[in-house]
Amino acid sequence: MRLQAEVLVLRGAIAESRHRVQCAVVDAAGSLLAASAESGSDAARVTSFRSAAKPFQLLPFVERGHADRLGCSDAELAIMAASHSGSRAHLALVRGLLERIGCTAGDLACGYHDPMDAESLTDVQRDPGAKSRLYNNCSGKHAGMLALAKAEGWPTAGYERREHPLQQLMLRTVAECCVVPAATIPLGVDGCSVPVFGLPLAAMALGYARLAAAMARGGEARAQALQRIGRAMVAEPVTVEGEGRLATDIMLAGRGRLLAKSGAEGLLLVAEPGTGRGIAIKCEDGAMRAVGPAAVELLLALGTLEPRDADSLNLHRRPPVHDAAGHPVGLLEARVSVVVSDDVRA
Amino acid sequence: MRLQAEVLVLRGAIAESRHRVQCAVVDAAGSLLAASAESGSDAARVTSFRSAAKPFQLLPFVERGHADRLGCSDAELAIMAASHSGSRAHLALVRGLLERIGCTAGDLACGYHDPMDAESLTDVQRDPGAKSRLYNNCSGKHAGMLALAKAEGWPTAGYERREHPLQQLMLRTVAECCVVPAATIPLGVDGCSVPVFGLPLAAMALGYARLAAAMARGGEARAQALQRIGRAMVAEPVTVEGEGRLATDIMLAGRGRLLAKSGAEGLLLVAEPGTGRGIAIKCEDGAMRAVGPAAVELLLALGTLEPRDADSLNLHRRPPVHDAAGHPVGLLEARVSVVVSDDVRA
Repeated sequence: MRLQAEVLVLRGAIAESRHRVQCAVVDAAGSLLAASAESGSDAARVTSFRSAAKPFQLLPFVERGHADRLGCSDAELAIMAASHSGSRAHLALVRGLLERIGCTAGDLACGYHDPMDAESLTDVQRDPGAKSRLYNNCSGKHAGMLALAKAEGWPTAGYERREHPLQQLMLRTVAECCVVPAATIPLGVDGCSVPVFGLPLAAMALGYARLAAAMARGGEARAQALQRIGRAMVAEPVTVEGEGRLATDIMLAGRGRLLAKSGAEGLLLVAEPGTGRGIAIKCEDGAMRAVGPAAVELLLALGTLEPRDADSLNLHRRPPVHDAAGHPVGLLEARVSVVVSDDVRA
Repeated sequence: MRLQAEVLVLRGAIAESRHRVQCAVVDAAGSLLAASAESGSDAARVTSFRSAAKPFQLLPFVERGHADRLGCSDAELAIMAASHSGSRAHLALVRGLLERIGCTAGDLACGYHDPMDAESLTDVQRDPGAKSRLYNNCSGKHAGMLALAKAEGWPTAGYERREHPLQQLMLRTVAECCVVPAATIPLGVDGCSVPVFGLPLAAMALGYARLAAAMARGGEARAQALQRIGRAMVAEPVTVEGEGRLATDIMLAGRGRLLAKSGAEGLLLVAEPGTGRGIAIKCEDGAMRAVGPAAVELLLALGTLEPRDADSLNLHRRPPVHDAAGHPVGLLEARVSVVVSDDVRA
């Protein structure tokens, strides 16, 4: 099945801007079920996995029994795989984890950025002294990395560096889960200062397909750990991102049937346990504003969402554009087409 | 001459995102000298003129003699054609104009948005009561529209509406300057609540080519008015946008030889009086971050900028990407290629 997706920014009668969107749909055996294709299949296109890698970055901590020994709740697992909005509830979870492992916000290698949560943003604007690395959307992942380093007896200082055994383990785990040789994975530094992984869209989708299969059926130790992580994320959709955020709202719309996780620069991954499919969606230019419209239309076209599921996603599907005075003056809209063919590269 | 331009977002070894950039280069006679071409010429592609229309929206006020009667300085003309950063100096100019015509910030139809200027942003964050429509990057244009309405004896209330004689005049003026029938121009509402115009990139470039020719040679009344506006903008590059902004820095690099004006959603127009060329550059997806890299490389490829001019534009040409802790972790880089051929559509 060949897909085409673009998102238009419509301002009155003017199609002002255009986003091109690429996607790959893969099953747990690694078969490419569908992909966008402009010139050849986009499934082979390499981009960075960013925060969509978080379930796999959490995997060693769970797989090695540390989450059990620490007695982690679903919410705590979810915050360690989260790109959270920095709400007070999110911060409380991260703070609680850090306290349990004897660390503080000062041990986090991620920098500060303003929280997306409106209440928290007001907090730090009123009191700039309250700014803390806890607000970084990745602070839960970093707390998890610190917890792993402590549990393994590795130094916590420098845990964010590429050569640290913890980051070497992250690379190996992502490579194994996405079935890509580690040596072929280009690396960069993520927004939160840890290594980030360059993968083909199809490999990201395969990682999520295997996550989906594990969520449905469990299996050996790794599959059980993936099941625990995936189910915790689906049980805690607001913890994983935040109120009104795309992945949260897709999980809420899916009512337990779907796991969704966004990544910076226009990425969204979806795991569908019912079919074992993994779906990778990337806005070529990295714009997050185009991901909602494209994702909702693509997930409808793929049957991952049913029309009635999409009702609650209208603000993501057709987000309004406002002028500075607050009047609606346009909207974003995705155009998706599906071409059924034997060869996804056709 | 056929051009190709794209901007890559490079994060370590990963090409994370990609922006496609379209452009058209036109002379004052309307000949298309160069254009990007993916499928057919991109010169015919319609997008919104946004703030790049401001010199033409200011034209009636100057052409009808009102600017002379009000004794407007270069800086006042420049602020009326500006997308300013909301610095204290910008605000003082707008406030001064409003006082002279007996209006206040409350008469401006544009809404408030946070200023780009760091000092002013701190001002409004410390004292949210200081937020005012003066900070809107278009407040100078709106002050000019109010001044025109007063001078023409039109009601100032509702001056932002499509059916108001002032906005009808804006439409006719843009249509005439860009040589497009007014009836064929699709309309929308701009971020500052006035009508915005959909034009082919080649028509925008033609408007700027005629502005360039007028700046060089003057001529009849309209050309003289365009000359006055263009020269005021070039004389006041920091007033037109602000410190560190792309169009400001291109004008500074051009040392009086170039006029540049940005528009929202990834647009940049350049007028080159020395050659009479007008250049329109549009990032297809609307991302402003891609405009600097693409514009500097394209202007170098076109000979509009010389290599030594570009030294001061390095932060626009190859802007760094930082992580939240402030470390440089990547950069944006444009790839521009030029194919010389008789047919720009080839």
